Amino acid sequence: MNPKMITENLEAIRKNSPLVHNITNYVVMNNTANALLAIGASPVMAHAQEEVKDMVGIASALVLNMGTLSKEWVESMIIAGLRANERKIPIVFDPVGAGATAYRNEIATRIINNCNPEIIRGNASEIMALVNQEMKTKGVDSVVSTKSALDSAKYLAQLHECIVVISGEVDYITDGNRVERVAFGNSMMEKVTGMGCTATALLGAFVATNDNLFEAAVNGMTVMGITGELASAKANGPGSMQMHFLDCLYKLSEVEIEQAFCTVE
Amino acid sequence: MNPKMITENLEAIRKNSPLVHNITNYVVMNNTANALLAIGASPVMAHAQEEVKDMVGIASALVLNMGTLSKEWVESMIIAGLRANERKIPIVFDPVGAGATAYRNEIATRIINNCNPEIIRGNASEIMALVNQEMKTKGVDSVVSTKSALDSAKYLAQLHECIVVISGEVDYITDGNRVERVAFGNSMMEKVTGMGCTATALLGAFVATNDNLFEAAVNGMTVMGITGELASAKANGPGSMQMHFLDCLYKLSEVEIEQAFCTVE
Amino acid sequence: MNPKMITENLEAIRKNSPLVHNITNYVVMNNTANALLAIGASPVMAHAQEEVKDMVGIASALVLNMGTLSKEWVESMIIAGLRANERKIPIVFDPVGAGATAYRNEIATRIINNCNPEIIRGNASEIMALVNQEMKTKGVDSVVSTKSALDSAKYLAQLHECIVVISGEVDYITDGNRVERVAFGNSMMEKVTGMGCTATALLGAFVATNDNLFEAAVNGMTVMGITGELASAKANGPGSMQMHFLDCLYKLSEVEIEQAFCTVE
Repeated sequence: MNPKMITENLEAIRKNSPLVHNITNYVVMNNTANALLAIGASPVMAHAQEEVKDMVGIASALVLNMGTLSKEWVESMIIAGLRANERKIPIVFDPVGAGATAYRNEIATRIINNCNPEIIRGNASEIMALVNQEMKTKGVDSVVSTKSALDSAKYLAQLHECIVVISGEVDYITDGNRVERVAFGNSMMEKVTGMGCTATALLGAFVATNDNLFEAAVNGMTVMGITGELASAKANGPGSMQMHFLDCLYKLSEVEIEQAFCTVE
Repeated sequence: MNPKMITENLEAIRKNSPLVHNITNYVVMNNTANALLAIGASPVMAHAQEEVKDMVGIASALVLNMGTLSKEWVESMIIAGLRANERKIPIVFDPVGAGATAYRNEIATRIINNCNPEIIRGNASEIMALVNQEMKTKGVDSVVSTKSALDSAKYLAQLHECIVVISGEVDYITDGNRVERVAFGNSMMEKVTGMGCTATALLGAFVATNDNLFEAAVNGMTVMGITGELASAKANGPGSMQMHFLDCLYKLSEVEIEQAFCTVE
Repeated sequence: MNPKMITENLEAIRKNSPLVHNITNYVVMNNTANALLAIGASPVMAHAQEEVKDMVGIASALVLNMGTLSKEWVESMIIAGLRANERKIPIVFDPVGAGATAYRNEIATRIINNCNPEIIRGNASEIMALVNQEMKTKGVDSVVSTKSALDSAKYLAQLHECIVVISGEVDYITDGNRVERVAFGNSMMEKVTGMGCTATALLGAFVATNDNLFEAAVNGMTVMGITGELASAKANGPGSMQMHFLDCLYKLSEVEIEQAFCTVE
């Protein structure tokens, strides 16, 4: 992980403006569409069973998010996921609220087993719930630290041959063997709805423009964290945080990325 | 109604971070999730019939809002409401647009009769339409003053043994006998979509942490109004109003609450 | 096109606060409701088949937007559209993403043929796709200039006896014979999701208060563009752009409109 590598991935997004197809939840659609636009990608939200195959057919990545799931949307996610597999475009899956209800656990398992996502991103409670379905989540918020979910993440990554991202105060990215730790970010991010979902959506843009998916995941979470730090330095609360996040993401420069790394070390 | 009582309720929300389950409308989901996060609660939005019972099972309050109602969502609201009754957790119901269409009147009546909400919050037109279904609403906006709806509110509160909140320039809270008047707020709040729905959602957090439901309703509407005043003092229009509202709610202090009371008297 | 004419239309919206009924997409509902409130109109979002006829029955304009279309919503749009025709209230249609999938092309054609919208507003790719269904769109973003779509727009306007608006860096408004060119706006508008949908929604308010639909369309696109310029002058990125857009729209004055015209000439 170094600033150069991250900047190159960011530049590739801005240059190629990849079409990222999102089947996501009602709460965050506006946020994630705006974050994808701010980073330079081209978002599209479409969920009708009649058209998701066609939409995946022109997309460079597929983002599936089960935040406000329902039966029909789940079927659309699976149709879209199978088409993404056919086209070999990457899928990023966000198991929002896994552990909160039996239905969420069932659907998360079904999506993972059917669609084989390249990346699964969740908070610690959600990742643990995917492995141990007795694990409880408080709605959509985590009740455990990311560190405590690391074993579950590794197990999940090995089982499904994918990359698992646990996001929180410290993020962990693992492919089952390697583990990368990203410690950027600010606690104000937890006070804005859909920040986790935004991370997932942005990962869609990173994997759409970087064949090294592990690197793309690390880059994406680093950009998310650094942007969160820059925005929180300007924010007076969660309302202005949301605004500054988009402004900072739009303007994020190589120098800012380098400076963030210097501050950490 | 005094600053101490309100601050204590607010502190209880911040300390306990109650899980508030919302089945609400598409327009305001992002706003109400953010407002609940800003005040310190933990929001979850979930509407699938397969999971609402489970979600209510871990929640501390249920918020039902019929802003963009449809058949399937109404069934989910009723399943969730019945489960909330079983668990004896409070329900706050927002009859958005009651009076605008016959279907809305029918559904509002059905939800009230089946779910027995502890609190009903609406604007004056909506509250009047719940009593007199000949009353017309202009879409989702009120066409009458809150004062004129007070008799309807009292009648409704007595009939359903619940608390009725009429919000507007002046808010009224009644349990059918007592009436409390809350005169905080600013007209800029009407220029931001979902401010009424936000009040309803926040009431969910207040009743989740205060067994005295009448007091909780008064506290909630007071916090809503004071936050609106603080935000409007900083705002240049409805866009910045929305942002400052969340920032001010996040930071709202006992001193600010006390000062707001002093200014009124 | 002159500042006086535009200001009068704007004043009519602020004075009459027309009820604009929107059946629109999940991504932008909050934005378009806020934009309609900021300009002085009264927005309502309602899509249930059981109530759309009643809601159209009290509305002054109907806005149909197929951004996140699905079978049930399309049926609602057609029921609402037929009722709007009966009542002779204007329909503004936004064929979001036409050209991206075969299903979108099919539905756009079906809505136009069944509902006879008074105004169709899209980006250049979308307008061209309505005429030549071989035309491809990149998700919801245009890949061609507005100028290149002008012939398609004229053809479409003549065929359906309606007004067609192509929005982009330069907007064109045509009734098939006349063509008006609106060159206000700023490129930052493309970085905010739903700006096109916001234009469509605002056109609903303009046609609701001006019987000269061509003039109303020109007025609406001009207000949209000038507001975009004013907002971008204050914005630091797409997040603050969205906020300033609502603030500037709320405050937009005759003097600002006049000044914008002076700057162009």
